[in-house]
Amino acid sequence: MDLEQIKEGILHGDRRYIAKAITMIEEGYTNIYEILEDFEEYSGKAKIIGITGPPGVGKSTLISKLVKEAINRNHNVGVLLVDPSSPISGGALLGNRVRMIEEVSDPKVYARSLATRGWTGGLSRAIDEAVLILEASGKDIIFIETVGAGQIETEIFKKADIVAVILMPYSGDEIQALKAGLMEIADIYVINKGDLDRNKITGVTLRTIMGKDKRIVYTSALYNEGIKELYDSLINIWDEYSKSGELDKRRKLKIKSSIIEDLNSYFLKLLDDFVKNKEQELEKITEEVYQGKISRYKAAKNVIEEFKDSLHKA
Amino acid sequence: MDLEQIKEGILHGDRRYIAKAITMIEEGYTNIYEILEDFEEYSGKAKIIGITGPPGVGKSTLISKLVKEAINRNHNVGVLLVDPSSPISGGALLGNRVRMIEEVSDPKVYARSLATRGWTGGLSRAIDEAVLILEASGKDIIFIETVGAGQIETEIFKKADIVAVILMPYSGDEIQALKAGLMEIADIYVINKGDLDRNKITGVTLRTIMGKDKRIVYTSALYNEGIKELYDSLINIWDEYSKSGELDKRRKLKIKSSIIEDLNSYFLKLLDDFVKNKEQELEKITEEVYQGKISRYKAAKNVIEEFKDSLHKA
Repeated sequence: MDLEQIKEGILHGDRRYIAKAITMIEEGYTNIYEILEDFEEYSGKAKIIGITGPPGVGKSTLISKLVKEAINRNHNVGVLLVDPSSPISGGALLGNRVRMIEEVSDPKVYARSLATRGWTGGLSRAIDEAVLILEASGKDIIFIETVGAGQIETEIFKKADIVAVILMPYSGDEIQALKAGLMEIADIYVINKGDLDRNKITGVTLRTIMGKDKRIVYTSALYNEGIKELYDSLINIWDEYSKSGELDKRRKLKIKSSIIEDLNSYFLKLLDDFVKNKEQELEKITEEVYQGKISRYKAAKNVIEEFKDSLHKA
Repeated sequence: MDLEQIKEGILHGDRRYIAKAITMIEEGYTNIYEILEDFEEYSGKAKIIGITGPPGVGKSTLISKLVKEAINRNHNVGVLLVDPSSPISGGALLGNRVRMIEEVSDPKVYARSLATRGWTGGLSRAIDEAVLILEASGKDIIFIETVGAGQIETEIFKKADIVAVILMPYSGDEIQALKAGLMEIADIYVINKGDLDRNKITGVTLRTIMGKDKRIVYTSALYNEGIKELYDSLINIWDEYSKSGELDKRRKLKIKSSIIEDLNSYFLKLLDDFVKNKEQELEKITEEVYQGKISRYKAAKNVIEEFKDSLHKA
């Protein structure tokens, strides 16, 4: 498969080529950037919906139902399942979740998990790049789901146009998790699981905590209830943000973050290469520090100066 | 409190000054390095024992019992509780665990949680620095405990002289977690919880999986059983490694890692400052990308070049 072939395949919405390109991103093939640069004109074509929430609230079932709803509406839908704690191919869990979505899917749907070798920043960039590929492939709505709880949940805010936070009917823990950080990133809350009546009681509690202005939707993904309403709400919020200028603001923030991420990635890579090339020298310096001939701090300073010099030459 | 005062206080083993210095590390006060550099001669004075394992296996209770044992043996003991997922002062959980240790402690014990603002690399360096302060304060044994499971569990391997992995009596999940990465870093396994007889059954299973050469100790921290044996084992392994040259090897690896971490920290800080100073310019470039006047990739390239230029001038 050459790059031109992959590029054409993606532009035709061919799953095999989308898959190939995203795998190349995951594995760090730099020549994928030739394609990505050509795809820039497609950036911003899709509505990007972040789906997050504590483990066990039924995010995957909910997304599979949203995908079904998207198909009914003739939307061309992409799904990215992101698990920051799971390295490439480590994800049996993600695999199951991809299959769950595939079961309901038709050729217009593309769903896959996303992971990268190494650092969180890499995963963050990979999400941007996978989104761009899905946009170029003609997707008009993209769901990004994260599992687990942590830094990446607030990171998703930068990737998505709007963020839905999924919660279960009231349990003290959920409300704690909510307070801890999910509140700031939510554009809409979805109370899922249980029956709708019970969910609505949770909604009352939630409203008491958060004030009146937050949108809450009640679903029971398992019993297929509330899905249409949720889908409508997501689209409505997106349209509203699009009109109010909020969407512009968020998308600019995303561009800015991605430029900063590129800057960081570039130098982290240089640092990494430098360390690999200086292996022998580092061993020697380490020995000197160990024997007390030079302090650890002085040794580090020297290495820093040397890296600086290498940049001057580059 | 001036630096000289803090330094003297630490050298006298005064808890207040140890606390002050570690807080300064957490909060990123750079003038703490003046003290740290003077303390280098104390580096390597203490036995550093890493304690890790899946959540819920009773690590904290076990450490509080090990601290008691250390007091009985007249050892001067320090404890660092590290939770990579918890930002500064976010840790009610860690607070409880510190109190748990303090309950058994006497003036020779110093226990505290450790967190940092920001990135994982920062936490990693903070552990090194807190260890050095504890060593300078006269601690001869330091326990580093991590909660949760993930990258930091393998990072701890670089910080500690030896690593104990705590497990509960057999459950499929534990064995999975074990296979996933804890096996490589363990110098000794501790099977805790339940009664000793039940624990020993788990030990048989564990041995089948791992082969004969791994040390296994059985404890019931709650009932205070097996603690002396565990403490003896930890000291014995340390002594053995000290004689065999393994300790030297590990400590050199630690020095090397810390030099590389310093190098990375230094440039990440420069990058961070650069981004902060170029705020207005970044906004302008972002606007240009958003309007399609320049591609995101070109914009990033330009910013990278500018950062390089700023380094030449620095």
